[in-house]
Amino acid sequence: MSEQGFPGKLVQALGADTVITDPSEIEPWLTDWRGVYRGRAQAVVRPSTTQQVAECLRLCNDHRVPVVPRGGNTGLCGGATPDSSPANVVLSLDRMNRIRSIDTIANTLVADAGCILGNLRRAAHEAGRMLPLSLAAEDSSQIGGNLATNAGGVNVLRYGMARELALGIEAVLPNGEIFNGLQTLRKDNTGYDLKQLFIGSEGTLGVITGVALKLHPLMQVRAVVLAAVESPRKALELLRLVYGACGPRLQAFEFFTDECLGLVLQHVEGAQQPFAQRHGGYVLIELADTADEQALQALLEDVIGRALEEELCADAVVSATLAQLESLWRLREEISEAQRADGPHLKHDISLPIEQIPAFMASAEQRVRSVAPECRLFVFGHFGDGNLHYNVSRPAGADRDWAARCEGPVAEAVFAEVARYGGSISAEHGIGQLKRHAFHHHKDPMHIRLMLQIKQVFDPNGIMNPGKLL
Amino acid sequence: MSEQGFPGKLVQALGADTVITDPSEIEPWLTDWRGVYRGRAQAVVRPSTTQQVAECLRLCNDHRVPVVPRGGNTGLCGGATPDSSPANVVLSLDRMNRIRSIDTIANTLVADAGCILGNLRRAAHEAGRMLPLSLAAEDSSQIGGNLATNAGGVNVLRYGMARELALGIEAVLPNGEIFNGLQTLRKDNTGYDLKQLFIGSEGTLGVITGVALKLHPLMQVRAVVLAAVESPRKALELLRLVYGACGPRLQAFEFFTDECLGLVLQHVEGAQQPFAQRHGGYVLIELADTADEQALQALLEDVIGRALEEELCADAVVSATLAQLESLWRLREEISEAQRADGPHLKHDISLPIEQIPAFMASAEQRVRSVAPECRLFVFGHFGDGNLHYNVSRPAGADRDWAARCEGPVAEAVFAEVARYGGSISAEHGIGQLKRHAFHHHKDPMHIRLMLQIKQVFDPNGIMNPGKLL
Repeated sequence: MSEQGFPGKLVQALGADTVITDPSEIEPWLTDWRGVYRGRAQAVVRPSTTQQVAECLRLCNDHRVPVVPRGGNTGLCGGATPDSSPANVVLSLDRMNRIRSIDTIANTLVADAGCILGNLRRAAHEAGRMLPLSLAAEDSSQIGGNLATNAGGVNVLRYGMARELALGIEAVLPNGEIFNGLQTLRKDNTGYDLKQLFIGSEGTLGVITGVALKLHPLMQVRAVVLAAVESPRKALELLRLVYGACGPRLQAFEFFTDECLGLVLQHVEGAQQPFAQRHGGYVLIELADTADEQALQALLEDVIGRALEEELCADAVVSATLAQLESLWRLREEISEAQRADGPHLKHDISLPIEQIPAFMASAEQRVRSVAPECRLFVFGHFGDGNLHYNVSRPAGADRDWAARCEGPVAEAVFAEVARYGGSISAEHGIGQLKRHAFHHHKDPMHIRLMLQIKQVFDPNGIMNPGKLL
Repeated sequence: MSEQGFPGKLVQALGADTVITDPSEIEPWLTDWRGVYRGRAQAVVRPSTTQQVAECLRLCNDHRVPVVPRGGNTGLCGGATPDSSPANVVLSLDRMNRIRSIDTIANTLVADAGCILGNLRRAAHEAGRMLPLSLAAEDSSQIGGNLATNAGGVNVLRYGMARELALGIEAVLPNGEIFNGLQTLRKDNTGYDLKQLFIGSEGTLGVITGVALKLHPLMQVRAVVLAAVESPRKALELLRLVYGACGPRLQAFEFFTDECLGLVLQHVEGAQQPFAQRHGGYVLIELADTADEQALQALLEDVIGRALEEELCADAVVSATLAQLESLWRLREEISEAQRADGPHLKHDISLPIEQIPAFMASAEQRVRSVAPECRLFVFGHFGDGNLHYNVSRPAGADRDWAARCEGPVAEAVFAEVARYGGSISAEHGIGQLKRHAFHHHKDPMHIRLMLQIKQVFDPNGIMNPGKLL
């Protein structure tokens, strides 16, 4: 039986093993990771080469068929989930999973866009180097998606976002042309840096098919302290001290409130109270270096000694063993798990000018309480790079509809305060479908106009990832 | 006496003290730093505020008058020098020289575009932080120009180009609209990162009026070694070892050939031969850290010991005193001065995939000698970031016209080899007028087409810096 219509053309051009047209087989490709979004599609294409991606896009462009690029589907904003149009074609990069090269002289890694981030991290490690991009979903997320959404993760303070690790990009434009920007040069000043446009564009300008990334030296030793601080302001003063004294060794500077600790102690088995008494908040600081654990430990103890003396922190535990290091990290890492156990909560992935965090926290709390009076706030995040997880949970005894009822007003309250302090409504995850409304409400209209005009340059027929971002 | 014509309109809008219309006063603004380029202009505008820049551009755009933005005029490619049209208006940022803020918690510096780079470096230093962008012309160059040309300099290996230090940009579009992207956020994933387009655009999209930059911790201690290597290949093996062992402390990895050393010993007073015998080439390595000079010195000695053992280098001098450190650096830094003393030479600021440098050097030499048989090659540069200064000097006894006669063929030979190895014809300085022909010859036509379309979005009337880059 030969395929009819447009799917038939895809099969003819790319082969039956590359194109899924059976509705029941398409089904799993229509929802996002959390099952919040659900769309429709007439076909799923799984190319193995850049040439096949080009052929698919050319065909879709000629027939004005919308294309939804899909990496690991872990972005949490619905950016890789098709909208409700039955005409959509989902373009999955999962078969493009070849590492093209690793070079420990130039310190570069070149790979297909469909490579799983965790696999790339392990390959770099085996070669004696580090790919510092690291995030919770790294064993599912694909590097092309990481760049298309400019992913963040736990190492941003020291190594920057995905953008800062990208040396080159290969991409296919909607008309099927291959953009060859897969270079590994550290310095190249020959005109506009076009690859920057693809990074963070969420599949609206083309499809990333290959990436060239910077590698860093392996960090072999770590030292961790948990410091009790009386306020977010004290935490920032501590940041200033530690950054100046430890310089590039500073790997993590994570803040969480006492409410977060309380939740972890309540819900996570084996979690232990770190101090004799409770404090306003806590900062977990990690240093890392290429060698010499003793020197690193001594440096950390020295700087924490100064912090205690200057009353920037009230108490501190320096990890003496790896087990202790891991149990300190657990107090921070298990906050999300404790929240899940606690019940429904409203999440906000925001960032702020770092020095404004204390003022923001005070005024945002007031504003959120004005729309959700009895709510419980769980605020934690990467203070060192201005990124806050600003999570709001229902009051004890609230009805089941609390989250659905409060979601809109609470988000509006949080985003309004973010705007007031010059922050961003999306620090890490991007816009996708989830924040499209808020994005268009809060973003400077002139910036949106320029983005739309650039979109027009790359994708004049508007086939790329409709309903996302722009 | 009231001004006539368009200059009169500028005076009316901006005030007589902001607009220069007297031809003799315009004169000094019509040439580049080296006096290679010379253009024409009907007026020079020196605004003090972003609003005045906006007013000037709006007026020029309405009257289709070409605008040439000018920072410190130190780019060496003629990018800030007007072309031969008498209609040009030169827009100098020199009066916009206010530091807007320095923050040692967020580690940011916000400043007007006309601030002198050296002044910003000193201001950051006084605040206990480092602005790592550092280059020979830093006491003349302006930060807006540094970003408009994506400047490099001596710290790129560790801290990246100007682009990597930019958190935000304020710019004025040709139509007079103010692009407000002057944020200090470390994380912001809300659409295309538009500021990236202004960086490296050489004034062809708009005028940068303000910048927000990242600051880094102050490096308080340094350690330097000069290693003798038998070949560029050995130098790269040494780079691999040092990078892995010293990690983020590696601040400079500079290579120069024995021919360069010979020139310095011949022309620079007080320069001393560093080793008992001469070698094929030399690598100057600098480590830097926030504290603990002894530990840094011990690390460097340890890694050089391993390098000698593994025969990656043939000999080495580790600096024991600051005076010794400075005299080692002089051997590298005085190469340019020695070349000047030696007579006319042809310079090429190129970059290569780092691992390809040895192969490039061998085959470029052959090709250059095929067009300039007896020439002398002086090759040095920042091996750690792939940037080579590939300089070609006339043979002993050559006639006075040698440079003029060979310039074209030699550049063609060098750029052809650069293209063959996937390098860049402009590592640091950009295109300007100087490399416009070579840029259009060597750059992928599809990239140029996209650049032209983006130029059309920002500058539909084509008033911005005509004759440069595109």
